[in-house]
Amino acid sequence: MRPIGVFDSGVGGLTVVKELVRQLPGEDIVYFGDTARVPYGIKSKETVIRFSIENILFLLRYNVKLICVACNTVSSFALPKIKNHFRVPIVGVISPGAREAVYATKNKRVGVIGTKGTIRSQAYEQEIKRLDPKVKVTAIACPLFVPFVEEGWLNQDVVSTVARRYLKPLKDSKVDTLILGCTHYPLLKSVIRDVMGGKVTLIDSAKQVAVEVNKILSDEGLLSNKARGRADFFVSDNPEWFKDLAGRFLGKPVKNVRKVNSV
Amino acid sequence: MRPIGVFDSGVGGLTVVKELVRQLPGEDIVYFGDTARVPYGIKSKETVIRFSIENILFLLRYNVKLICVACNTVSSFALPKIKNHFRVPIVGVISPGAREAVYATKNKRVGVIGTKGTIRSQAYEQEIKRLDPKVKVTAIACPLFVPFVEEGWLNQDVVSTVARRYLKPLKDSKVDTLILGCTHYPLLKSVIRDVMGGKVTLIDSAKQVAVEVNKILSDEGLLSNKARGRADFFVSDNPEWFKDLAGRFLGKPVKNVRKVNSV
Repeated sequence: MRPIGVFDSGVGGLTVVKELVRQLPGEDIVYFGDTARVPYGIKSKETVIRFSIENILFLLRYNVKLICVACNTVSSFALPKIKNHFRVPIVGVISPGAREAVYATKNKRVGVIGTKGTIRSQAYEQEIKRLDPKVKVTAIACPLFVPFVEEGWLNQDVVSTVARRYLKPLKDSKVDTLILGCTHYPLLKSVIRDVMGGKVTLIDSAKQVAVEVNKILSDEGLLSNKARGRADFFVSDNPEWFKDLAGRFLGKPVKNVRKVNSV
Repeated sequence: MRPIGVFDSGVGGLTVVKELVRQLPGEDIVYFGDTARVPYGIKSKETVIRFSIENILFLLRYNVKLICVACNTVSSFALPKIKNHFRVPIVGVISPGAREAVYATKNKRVGVIGTKGTIRSQAYEQEIKRLDPKVKVTAIACPLFVPFVEEGWLNQDVVSTVARRYLKPLKDSKVDTLILGCTHYPLLKSVIRDVMGGKVTLIDSAKQVAVEVNKILSDEGLLSNKARGRADFFVSDNPEWFKDLAGRFLGKPVKNVRKVNSV
């Protein structure tokens, strides 16, 4: 009956929580959002690794049975380095998303969008190439998408204008599959779909992560047998800001958000 | 011959450094940008105060003769609380900007734009009211302006579209003076001027801060008598990112950027 731990630099990881709750409604979840140091997407590998270890140590205090890294930047930069330091299984968002994209593409052309950090890391390219060396990957950083989501501009004209500019190289390279490589981006799905056209498959890592978590817990005999789990939310700053945004990501309001002084 | 210390959450404070170098070319400058925890504008008062104290303690290691808080969020949230803790004079951006706006306005209607934190703090309103209770202040948060500047989108159509939307309440309230209450905003001056019209006076705090620093150092007999000072830059993360952006803010490239492990 131990909880699943989930962490992110801020609020974006709640798209993963939403899927975990949908696919594994009986599980308890402890979420940590590092809102005092958000965003990670512009920070260096070394710093992201340090913050991630601190976040994992925080979650371990709650005796979590599995940790979900609900952040593409952390999964890209830090996960390969730190995964083996810990006993607890740690699931990132890169492998599940890459696997699904390789499965989905028919013309072997896959696009990836994410933060500067995620794109610079080339984590998706490397994972996709490992799975199928024939797939051609086009990866583009979209730094304004996170501010748009956090500002609540999800369907405005100006977002479409920016999306058209960012996504042009992906249209030019005729990808038939696009990985939304940042936990904020599922909220811009309708704009992205309009720009890319209905024939391009959008891969939302959150869904695949929940599938992977389900598989690991089931293999290890660790699935909860409760009917309904609870979720607790911890942030390193600004619980009010987190609460305001959380509804947008989870699709329902959150109440039990606590600020913790240090990670 | 002690240096002036300057700090900001990241790169924005370089607009203040630019003015210091222009108005006080003989001064040495030690700059600290807290790029591991940038941005501050969305963070809580308590957290911004904690970070600011750490930044001041870092600068004091360099025996600075004055500290310039080149960040509106810190000046709004933290400065009133921490100013009196330290012996060294600490100059923020709020009072100089507010004073200049009160001096400039003819119709007694002043606008303020800034981050969410700065606007929520009402620091400009309070300072302006203190100087002249008859001035009517309209204050608006413009959260997308910083990401636009950091993305290098300074004159794009989409920035004008967003600016027109953000600035509409200021046009409606017929301000004749507008405080650019964030150190990033001077880079968007031409877009903001286009939207507001040529008759509105734009107040760039950086200039006023340098005037204030000059006055304090001169009153205390602490002005440098060198012909040309040097500037050293420290950041808590990502010196490369800082260097890339610094040119845009300073108008010339910076070389001596060092990463410091902790503040």
